[in-house]
Amino acid sequence: MQLTKDKNILIVGLGLLGGSYAMALSRQGFHVDAITRRQETVDYALSRGWIRAGDAKVNAELIGNADIIVFTLYPTVLLDWIAENGHLIKEGTIVTDVTGVKGHVTDQIQAALPEGVEYIGAHPMAGREVLGIENSDDSIFHGANYLVVPTEKNTEDAIALCEDLGWRLGFARVSRLSVQEHDRMIAFLSQLTHCIAVTLMCCSDEPNMEKYTGDSFRDLTRIARINDGMWSELFMCNREELLNQMDVFAKTFDQFRDALAQGDVQTMRSMMRHSTEQRAKFDKPKR
Amino acid sequence: MQLTKDKNILIVGLGLLGGSYAMALSRQGFHVDAITRRQETVDYALSRGWIRAGDAKVNAELIGNADIIVFTLYPTVLLDWIAENGHLIKEGTIVTDVTGVKGHVTDQIQAALPEGVEYIGAHPMAGREVLGIENSDDSIFHGANYLVVPTEKNTEDAIALCEDLGWRLGFARVSRLSVQEHDRMIAFLSQLTHCIAVTLMCCSDEPNMEKYTGDSFRDLTRIARINDGMWSELFMCNREELLNQMDVFAKTFDQFRDALAQGDVQTMRSMMRHSTEQRAKFDKPKR
Repeated sequence: MQLTKDKNILIVGLGLLGGSYAMALSRQGFHVDAITRRQETVDYALSRGWIRAGDAKVNAELIGNADIIVFTLYPTVLLDWIAENGHLIKEGTIVTDVTGVKGHVTDQIQAALPEGVEYIGAHPMAGREVLGIENSDDSIFHGANYLVVPTEKNTEDAIALCEDLGWRLGFARVSRLSVQEHDRMIAFLSQLTHCIAVTLMCCSDEPNMEKYTGDSFRDLTRIARINDGMWSELFMCNREELLNQMDVFAKTFDQFRDALAQGDVQTMRSMMRHSTEQRAKFDKPKR
Repeated sequence: MQLTKDKNILIVGLGLLGGSYAMALSRQGFHVDAITRRQETVDYALSRGWIRAGDAKVNAELIGNADIIVFTLYPTVLLDWIAENGHLIKEGTIVTDVTGVKGHVTDQIQAALPEGVEYIGAHPMAGREVLGIENSDDSIFHGANYLVVPTEKNTEDAIALCEDLGWRLGFARVSRLSVQEHDRMIAFLSQLTHCIAVTLMCCSDEPNMEKYTGDSFRDLTRIARINDGMWSELFMCNREELLNQMDVFAKTFDQFRDALAQGDVQTMRSMMRHSTEQRAKFDKPKR
């Protein structure tokens, strides 16, 4: 199934990411409606032409009209929303999301939705360290990765539609991962890196360091400006995998420390060469 | 003392950094000469007008003519060069460098130079993850920090000249630090971050991760593409301070891990809020 322009897309939650979705899709002529908490956010999106209609309340008509619903909410808010309002979604609607963990939410969402409504998980690997619709910017999707996370309950039609949404948003790569693969991968690639950045900023309160620093410290701590409510929730939802990855990191860090303590230059250099070689794969694809 | 255009500046070592120095200074009309290992590097710099004269051999005339010498060499190569050729430097010449550690080299350089030649340490906090004069780019200095590291043996005249060099190169901030302050600060801000980046790239060889990653992992590992010869040398020259900083990091990381393991969301959130607040200071100054 392809994302066609006769479909009604409803976005629930117009934050940075929901706003960027609305921006990208409306610019291509798709029908986008939105439900979000604050009326001024609705007005902002309406005034820019990013949505056709919006409401700061749960609006049964907007929900019932939707062919595709994209939830851009925190994990717990998403689960509560579906528990309360899921019955308003019409049969045949495809539901997707942007949630950063999948194990914790996938079964619960699938169980809570009415018969005939299909949930297909997605995770756009893009964001900014600022919040809110006024910081929305669909260029964050360019060069970035979009992950589709199907389960055995999904139809090939819904998976294809979700993949098409990723391409339409402007992502450079769209991949499929199982729930378990996704959560292990994200624990390493995203959650661990946030733990490291926060740790670095909590190591020292020595004054004036900003006058002495180079770009490496700035790069490693860009994401240390962190939404504590959302990230602590994401960490708790993926606790076991994240603890595993933190332990692998701590052990490898300790190996490097031992090499330095023992003056074992060969081991340090061999880790550095391995690192250099591996890192070459991670350059952002050119558009 | 100010850096005036009647002065002869000699750069020893035209790599990425030496080349960028030559580029920045020659563009402003300063007299720049160079000694570097390979003739093709000399030719490259001559063809671009970055130097007035250059030699791939130790050239007594160029050295004897210099009022200011900037060494842009690895620590061990720098110490060897001065031991062999220091006697060719004329009285009154000011010698500076770009070495990333100071404790290990400062006393040795000061002791090895002839009477009447003054060494004033400097550390430009700018670089790229690529090597060589062909990657030189003086815009790396814009918005960046320049550290001057005097000892009690330095004259105010030489310190002022070295600071002026930092401003002329285009740095946004020029600061003075003692040798001990410098090496502690650099262990934390620069060396530790490189250890973390290398560790991250050595944690997992799982294939296809580049298809799933977001920008946070890319940012934290940009510097994982590392010159193993130079960095292992810098680490060994600052071993005690770096081990201290690695231990502080590991301990703080462990505190975060414990909070997660115990489901202590308040501690995690409080570390994240502290992190967010501290990070705000580190944004690059606008020009």
